[in-house]
Amino acid sequence: MNHDELYAKLLVKTPVKMALVVLDGLGDIATPAQGNLTPLEAATTPNLDRLVKNGCAQGRMTPVAPGITPGSGPGHLALFGYDPLEFEVGRGVIEALGLGLELNAGDVAARANFCTLDAKGLVTDRRAGRIATEICEELCAVLSSKIKKIGNTEVTIKAGKEHRFVVIFHGKGLEGPLTDTDPNREGLPIASAKPVNAKSAKQKKMAKLISDFYKAALPLLKGRQPANGFLMRGVAHQPAIPLFADRYAMRPAAIAVYPMYKGLAQLVGMAKIEGPQTIAEQFERYRAEYDNYDFFFIHYKYTDKAGEDGNFDAKVKAIQDFDAALPILLKKKPDVLVITGDHSTPCAMRGHSWHPQPVLLHSAVSGSDKLERFSETGANQGSLGVFEAKYLIRLMQANGKMFDKFGA
Amino acid sequence: MNHDELYAKLLVKTPVKMALVVLDGLGDIATPAQGNLTPLEAATTPNLDRLVKNGCAQGRMTPVAPGITPGSGPGHLALFGYDPLEFEVGRGVIEALGLGLELNAGDVAARANFCTLDAKGLVTDRRAGRIATEICEELCAVLSSKIKKIGNTEVTIKAGKEHRFVVIFHGKGLEGPLTDTDPNREGLPIASAKPVNAKSAKQKKMAKLISDFYKAALPLLKGRQPANGFLMRGVAHQPAIPLFADRYAMRPAAIAVYPMYKGLAQLVGMAKIEGPQTIAEQFERYRAEYDNYDFFFIHYKYTDKAGEDGNFDAKVKAIQDFDAALPILLKKKPDVLVITGDHSTPCAMRGHSWHPQPVLLHSAVSGSDKLERFSETGANQGSLGVFEAKYLIRLMQANGKMFDKFGA
Repeated sequence: MNHDELYAKLLVKTPVKMALVVLDGLGDIATPAQGNLTPLEAATTPNLDRLVKNGCAQGRMTPVAPGITPGSGPGHLALFGYDPLEFEVGRGVIEALGLGLELNAGDVAARANFCTLDAKGLVTDRRAGRIATEICEELCAVLSSKIKKIGNTEVTIKAGKEHRFVVIFHGKGLEGPLTDTDPNREGLPIASAKPVNAKSAKQKKMAKLISDFYKAALPLLKGRQPANGFLMRGVAHQPAIPLFADRYAMRPAAIAVYPMYKGLAQLVGMAKIEGPQTIAEQFERYRAEYDNYDFFFIHYKYTDKAGEDGNFDAKVKAIQDFDAALPILLKKKPDVLVITGDHSTPCAMRGHSWHPQPVLLHSAVSGSDKLERFSETGANQGSLGVFEAKYLIRLMQANGKMFDKFGA
Repeated sequence: MNHDELYAKLLVKTPVKMALVVLDGLGDIATPAQGNLTPLEAATTPNLDRLVKNGCAQGRMTPVAPGITPGSGPGHLALFGYDPLEFEVGRGVIEALGLGLELNAGDVAARANFCTLDAKGLVTDRRAGRIATEICEELCAVLSSKIKKIGNTEVTIKAGKEHRFVVIFHGKGLEGPLTDTDPNREGLPIASAKPVNAKSAKQKKMAKLISDFYKAALPLLKGRQPANGFLMRGVAHQPAIPLFADRYAMRPAAIAVYPMYKGLAQLVGMAKIEGPQTIAEQFERYRAEYDNYDFFFIHYKYTDKAGEDGNFDAKVKAIQDFDAALPILLKKKPDVLVITGDHSTPCAMRGHSWHPQPVLLHSAVSGSDKLERFSETGANQGSLGVFEAKYLIRLMQANGKMFDKFGA
């Protein structure tokens, strides 16, 4: 019996309310340049402090595996309790979600770059001189208006930033992954997309579709210097992921502002609650929807943004803004409340990292680790230890008394 | 090579004495209602304190998996170093052990309830009105005297409390698990026990035995209102568990008071040392038997009992009673000493829980975590971290210098 089977066997449907508040990229590292404090330690957080003193368990979470830096996809899948090595979400799918495109099980998505081809069809610039976003939008509009379908398969094309766009194939019997058409260096022709699993009839069908898509699209770009071609990467289907509601016996909803996080929540079957723009509005909406769902995923982007910018003060401010809004949520405290990140985004690194993110869990039976504050250093001494993020919801369920005892 | 193979490969038979002292249900949580202290923190434990200051490693153990609350069976199997998901012990077996019945590898045990049947054979009360224990004993005596064997298979029947009893089938070629004969609600007939694995010839044979047992037993209960029938649950065989002595190269003995813990120790082949009733007597006996065994499992029940009763003061007292007796053991200090629980039983929850239990390990090479006391909060900062209970004996063996270096 593996762990998932064990949890499924012991699961008891229980009326319970839970909130998972994700401060994206929350985790950080202390460096001498910043007074040896992390942003969470440097921030003034009276409301978080009060919550901690009321009794919380703390710990740190390894998002994927020791030393592995996750993207937003694996980071969130792990938070949602799905092993990110078992449920891989292709880059095409993530990119599509980030552009707000809806994907259904079986759809195949690819990310694409406009590129420059010479007269012989060799790639001379893999990014077409990083054309302006407006030109990209114009070219995607041309492709979209002329290519609605390839055979029986509907096609959606949507522009991203600069030379980037996304193509989605809505069909049946399709499957990724395929190899990239990007030759990865200049001076070579566009590669053909090949099945990764040569025995898969669905992948073969998909490879043919990509080839046919090129045949339809390239003539439409002829002469449009510098973007007279395109390269496709990360051609993958949306994996069939067990639905959150079935797996955890809770009705889940996502209150996120950015499309990618709405999309990731939708991948596991969460309802999307649209509208709120600020964390205060998100918490207000949580209260308004309290009776309609059992599990709320509330996503806050600005900690990550500040970390990516290497802006320590902005990250401190983002945490303080969150703290100022926290009382709105606490007016209708869920039975089980978790505050954490999906990964660390240390300011000193200006990007995601592998450092385990701190996590705080509060419930009537979480116990108290008797820490004064919520911080990376404090969490190191917490009762949750350092654990794999994929177990977080299981711990929340335990605190919600959703598991029978194992054995007599 | 998996971990078990690694340990087996590196194992070196070494003369060593070890004691694993289990304070059942020791772990607890700090709540405001109890001054934000756990019982272990509230207790006055001068002898434990002295041991800690002499140099101990501390940590916390996950009994089975994050969020999983174990029964005594899985809790102890994990402590004995057997993965409780690999070696599942059926409820019938645990119940039988709890009644002090001896089980051998291959025996199949079932727990049973007397029930009430109407004229049509439909269950009208699944617990026969919770008949008095004396009536249960009387009925079991009737069944026992008339049913010694079913075919070639010896049968043992023993009364438990109220309507509960246990049936053991001593035979060869038998195997569980079978489905329950309990229809789980009134108004239905007794179900027939079916093989869980339809392809198992041994399970089929066992199902036939249960059916024949019913044919022999039901007529003996005819007219004995309200207990004129019975339902069987958790029909399972004693799993074949690798012997402790072979696995760890130590002669093990159990000094336990309650039958279930003697039984669990016997499952892995520990010798049972009978007689002692108090923890002081148990420690005296440990000293008397010191030369006869290498590994002593010493089980103390009263911490769990107090936790189950939600009696904080009683749990504090149980810990203090243990502490008062501890010097008896320390007069003949084993080379490796561990003090821990099999799981947590927080007073605030009045039952077992998933919270990792604290563990203390003392040896000449355990190092010192420089903590002042043994407690949940202290253990959070210990050098052992939070780890799976099944690795505990391996750590004890390492401290006993029982493993060669792995690789050059």
